Amino acid sequence: MTNQLDAVPQLAPVTVVGLGPMGLALAGALLDRGHPTTVWNRTPAKADDVVARGARSAEDIAEAVSASPVVITCLKDYETAHGVLAPATDALRGRVLVNLNSGTPSEAAAAAGWAAERGAAYLDGAIMVPPPLVGDPGAVFLYSGSEDVFDEHRETLASMGAPRFLGADPSLAVLHNTALLGLMYATMNGFLHATALVGSAGVPAVEFADLAVNWFMPAVVVNPTLVEQAADLDASNYPGDLGTMEMNLNALEHIARTCVEQGVHADQARHMVAIAEQAIATGHGGENYLAVFEVFKNAQATPQRRIASRA
Amino acid sequence: MTNQLDAVPQLAPVTVVGLGPMGLALAGALLDRGHPTTVWNRTPAKADDVVARGARSAEDIAEAVSASPVVITCLKDYETAHGVLAPATDALRGRVLVNLNSGTPSEAAAAAGWAAERGAAYLDGAIMVPPPLVGDPGAVFLYSGSEDVFDEHRETLASMGAPRFLGADPSLAVLHNTALLGLMYATMNGFLHATALVGSAGVPAVEFADLAVNWFMPAVVVNPTLVEQAADLDASNYPGDLGTMEMNLNALEHIARTCVEQGVHADQARHMVAIAEQAIATGHGGENYLAVFEVFKNAQATPQRRIASRA
Ligand SMILES: NC(=O)c1ccc[n+]([C@@H]2O[C@H](COP(=O)([O-])OP(=O)(O)OC[C@H]3O[C@@H](n4cnc5c(N)ncnc54)[C@H](OP(=O)(O)O)[C@@H]3O)[C@@H](O)[C@H]2O)c1
Ligand SMILES: NC(=O)c1ccc[n+]([C@@H]2O[C@H](COP(=O)([O-])OP(=O)(O)OC[C@H]3O[C@@H](n4cnc5c(N)ncnc54)[C@H](OP(=O)(O)O)[C@@H]3O)[C@@H](O)[C@H]2O)c1
Repeated sequence: MTNQLDAVPQLAPVTVVGLGPMGLALAGALLDRGHPTTVWNRTPAKADDVVARGARSAEDIAEAVSASPVVITCLKDYETAHGVLAPATDALRGRVLVNLNSGTPSEAAAAAGWAAERGAAYLDGAIMVPPPLVGDPGAVFLYSGSEDVFDEHRETLASMGAPRFLGADPSLAVLHNTALLGLMYATMNGFLHATALVGSAGVPAVEFADLAVNWFMPAVVVNPTLVEQAADLDASNYPGDLGTMEMNLNALEHIARTCVEQGVHADQARHMVAIAEQAIATGHGGENYLAVFEVFKNAQATPQRRIASRA
Repeated sequence: MTNQLDAVPQLAPVTVVGLGPMGLALAGALLDRGHPTTVWNRTPAKADDVVARGARSAEDIAEAVSASPVVITCLKDYETAHGVLAPATDALRGRVLVNLNSGTPSEAAAAAGWAAERGAAYLDGAIMVPPPLVGDPGAVFLYSGSEDVFDEHRETLASMGAPRFLGADPSLAVLHNTALLGLMYATMNGFLHATALVGSAGVPAVEFADLAVNWFMPAVVVNPTLVEQAADLDASNYPGDLGTMEMNLNALEHIARTCVEQGVHADQARHMVAIAEQAIATGHGGENYLAVFEVFKNAQATPQRRIASRA
C-alpha cells in the first residue's frame, strides 16, 4: 500500500468570520476540501456544527484573524464587517482580507481603502448562489480588486465555488451583484405577480408555474435572441420594424387595466407603463421595446458616478 | 404515378381580418398548410404579399366574412375589432369568430356576448409568440370559450401553432396573456436595468448578457425549484429558514442605493423595496421572499372580480 497521506498537498489555512447561513456554508465547503479552517462568530454557538466537522473556533476576533493568511468575512453588511474587525486591525497587517457580504459600490471602495490603511491586501467578492450550492464547482463567485492577490489565492477561492475575476476596481463585484440580484428580484416579482393575476380566476400556482417556467420563460423570454440583441444595446440601435414602443405600451396598458379589473396589485404594471411612456416622450416611440434601456441608463444628469468606467 | 392531389384532404377555408405583422404571419401560416385563405385589411395594400402567395383579397368586410366558416380577427384591440366587424354582422351569423387581439378579461367577455347576440360562435385566443414563430408546431396559442367549437376547429387552429384550451370562460386566454406578458416585461425590464447598472461602469451589454442570460437566469432564477415551490404559493406557506423577507429587503435596499450612486433609474428597485416593506408591514418579515405573493394577490378589498374562479 502507498501512503496516501503523502499524496495530499497541504491546503492553505483559512479563517471564516461570520457564521450566518452563508458563512456556515463557506466554512463547510473549505473543510470538505481539506483546508485547516478557523471560525469566529458573534454568537459562538453557531460554530458547533462546523467545529464538529473539524473547524477550530477562535476565542476572539484577533485570534481568528491571526490563525490564517486568508481571512474571509461573510457578515450582514459592510458596517458590521468594520465593527467586527475593528479590534483586530493589528493582526490584519500582511494578510489577505476577502469580504463577501453584499452592499453598494462605494461601500466596497471604502472597505478596500480601510484595508489598505491597515496594511492588508483586499479582495471584494459576491456569492451568486444560495448556501446549499456553495462548494459546487459551478457555483459562481465574483471578485474584484488586486488581480495579483486573486491569482495567488485562486485555489483557495476555488474551494468555495468557481471564482470569476471582474477587474481592479474593488467595487465591480458588488456592482455586478446588485445588477444580477435586481434581475432576479424583477423576474421573481414578475412571476409571482403573474401567478397572482391568473390566481384571481382560480388557476393554481402549480399549473401556471409549469406553463410559465417550463415553457414560456425558456422559449420566449430567456432565449439566445436576447444575447444577440445585446450588441444593439451597446450601439443604442433599436429598429422598430417587428414591433414598436407604442405597440408595447398598448400591451402594458392592457396588463395594468387587467390588474385593476381583477383586484390584483397594479403598481408593477403601472411602473412599466410609466417607463414606456417616458421612452416615448424622449423620442423612442417608433423604436423597439429595448429602447427603454435609454430610460434606465440616464436617471438624471449624474455629476459623479462611483465607478465611471472599468479599469 | 399516383395522383397525389387525391391524397390531400381539403382543409377548411379561413378568413383573416387584420394584416398587421401578426395577421400577415397568421395568413402566411394558413396558406403554407394549404387552407383556402381570404384576407381583409383597412389598408388593402398590405395584402399584396399574401395575395401573391395565393390568398384572396376581399373587396369589403362582409365579403371577407362570407367567404369562410371560420373568421379570424387579429386587429389592434377589441374596440377596433368591433368597429371593423360592425358592417358584417349579418354575414357573421352561423360562423365561428376567433378573435386573437390582446386586451382585458372584461373586453373578451363583452366580445363573446357581442358575438352571441349576432348568432356567431366565439373563441377568444392569445398568441404567445412573435410573428416569425407563427406556424411553428411549438408556437403556443391559448384559447378559451366553447370547448365544442375549439374541438371542432382544432385542426384549423393547429395550422397556426399549438392550440391550448384553458376553459369555458372566454376571458381566460386574455387573462393568461396579460399574466405571461407581465412576466415577460418584468424580466425584460430587469435585464435591461441590470445591463444599465453595470453599463454605468463601462461593462458592455454583450459581456453582461452572456453572464446574465446564459448562466445566471437558467442556473439561479428560472430553475425547477421555482416550479416545486409553486405548491407553497397555493398553500400560502413561506418558511423563512433559508432566508427571510428582512434579509431580502436588505438586498433590495442595496440595489436601490447602488442605482442612486451610479445615476441609473432607481424606480424599479424602489418599487420592489416598497413591496417587500408592505410584506413586512403585513406580518411576513420572518417568512421567505415568496411571501410577496400575498401583497400581489390582495391589492384591495375587491367587490367583484371579472373572473371570480375558473369554470
Ligand atoms: N443567504 C443567502 O442566500 C446569501 C446569498 C448570497 C449572498 N449572501 C450575503 O452573505 C452575507 C451573509 O448572509 P447570511 O445569509 O449568512 O445572513 P445575514 O443575516 O445577512 O448575516 C448573518 C451574520 O452577520 C452577523 N451579524 C449581524 N449583525 C451583527 C453585529 N451587529 N455584530 C456582529 N455580527 C453581526 C451574524 O452574527 P450572529 O450569528 O451573531 O447574529 C451572522 O454571522 C450577506 O451580506 C448576504 O447578503 C447571502
Ligand atoms: N406583433 C406581435 O409581436 C404580437 C404578438 C402577440 C400578439 N399580438 C397581438 O396581435 C394583435 C395585432 O398585432 P400586430 O402586431 O399585427 O399590429 P397592431 O398594430 O397591434 O395591429 C395592426 C392591425 O390593426 C389594424 N387597425 C388598427 N387601427 C385600426 C382601425 N381604427 N380600423 C381598422 N383597422 C385598424 C391595422 O390596419 P392597417 O394595416 O390599416 O393599419 C392592422 O390590421 C394585437 O392585439 C397584438 O397585441 C402581437
